[in-house]
Amino acid sequence: MRHAVFPGGGRLRPNLCLSVAAACGVGSELDAQADIGAAIELLHCASLVHDDLPCFDDAALRRGRPSVHAAYGEELAVLAGDGLIVLAFELVASARISPALVPPLIRCIARGVGAGGGLVAGQAWESEQSVGLRTYHKAKTGALFEAGAHAGALLAGSAPSRAQSWGAFGARLGEAYQVADDLRDTLDDTASLGKPVGQDMAHDRPNACMTLGIEGALERLRALLDQAVEAMPACPQPERVVSWVEDFGARLYPRAVRVHQPSANGTVVADLRA
Amino acid sequence: MRHAVFPGGGRLRPNLCLSVAAACGVGSELDAQADIGAAIELLHCASLVHDDLPCFDDAALRRGRPSVHAAYGEELAVLAGDGLIVLAFELVASARISPALVPPLIRCIARGVGAGGGLVAGQAWESEQSVGLRTYHKAKTGALFEAGAHAGALLAGSAPSRAQSWGAFGARLGEAYQVADDLRDTLDDTASLGKPVGQDMAHDRPNACMTLGIEGALERLRALLDQAVEAMPACPQPERVVSWVEDFGARLYPRAVRVHQPSANGTVVADLRA
Repeated sequence: MRHAVFPGGGRLRPNLCLSVAAACGVGSELDAQADIGAAIELLHCASLVHDDLPCFDDAALRRGRPSVHAAYGEELAVLAGDGLIVLAFELVASARISPALVPPLIRCIARGVGAGGGLVAGQAWESEQSVGLRTYHKAKTGALFEAGAHAGALLAGSAPSRAQSWGAFGARLGEAYQVADDLRDTLDDTASLGKPVGQDMAHDRPNACMTLGIEGALERLRALLDQAVEAMPACPQPERVVSWVEDFGARLYPRAVRVHQPSANGTVVADLRA
Repeated sequence: MRHAVFPGGGRLRPNLCLSVAAACGVGSELDAQADIGAAIELLHCASLVHDDLPCFDDAALRRGRPSVHAAYGEELAVLAGDGLIVLAFELVASARISPALVPPLIRCIARGVGAGGGLVAGQAWESEQSVGLRTYHKAKTGALFEAGAHAGALLAGSAPSRAQSWGAFGARLGEAYQVADDLRDTLDDTASLGKPVGQDMAHDRPNACMTLGIEGALERLRALLDQAVEAMPACPQPERVVSWVEDFGARLYPRAVRVHQPSANGTVVADLRA
């Protein structure tokens, strides 16, 4: 379980959760917010462990290191994922927040990862003969970003409908993230990504580049980021989230986007689309 | 997920939960109690789905039908297990109980299945070179019976320390169940058990019959049931649990125990120990 969680990746989902809580005006202690953010990250890590299993991606690398099953065997990888899911919900129930917040937070987070349209549903759709790309992305990736933003608003004491609007904002960011991930899978090399590339093609999985073309996928990525900012609900400190989205966008933009910009030493990054 | 849950087995764990709640004096609606019992059963079913996977038991049969991975493939079996775990916690958070009960119930149930001494830990210990039989049984099976009894007392409004005493009672029953399961794995045939037998020997796993011998395992089973009844905390309606334990004991006793008792049609059950 530790191997699956440390060292981490971008910690994007918990950071989104905490940024939204900060933007909405803090209604709970930072430690408690961190617990909820950590729970969301544990669920993300659990999904990576199970996605890497031989029956799915059979990926030997994750974040530049052996995946959990490569390091500890398939049995412990299945169990590490299970244990992380359980720990996530235990953490929400142990956070120092008002007990009244626990049920809506658990429901919000469970929807983000569950079989009714969350992460598990998205992963399952990979096994289907055909699935709409957007539906797939919404579940596979969007739903946990949605839950992160929604949970942040709940933590700040937002009313249910307002918290849901934040969820819609998070869902757009999640979709953007998935399109960027598809671009990386298509365009990046293994060394820079820290995991095998070309997995979607190899596994005949939906990928925005295959469906929309590379230019189309880049356009879609930009549109999703724009739509997210437009969909941002009014809040006391919007700058706390806007700066997060800027950082997020800068991280997401795959190498190919910067194709014609001169780099610091005067050369240009190779055009991977060529 | 439906295939994993219906038709069910004995539904022992949720029945234990509801019996304890009834014995302690009902503090919540029966529908809400049923939700909590169902959550516990979903977690049990999830563990069966993952236990049956090729990397563990590679069992093609469960409850007389194809196991989930035999019916739907390994990918959907991993995801069905994950989805059931998530759904279980969502169900607790959606139950019509006082919000103040949700955090302790989630913590109680998470301990029963988690990596810190619950089901996931027990399953992981199967991969170890050696493990104490009792420690293994406590985690693999005892912990979720413990959680069931503990949750029942919480639902009835018992104080935390009293609810924990009910947990200790449940843990004994869980150990008894696991010893009985080992006896069945050693002595029964596939047709009567509805799943392959001899799996522990085949997978070199701890089994009470190997450690204690068959007679020793039967003695241990009887002792655990006796100890459970002795450890039963005082409550307004103890008969509600005592009758449950009697039914439970009658179910648990493996066929070999009844070896020398005449059956209804005058024959005797074959002595499987011969």
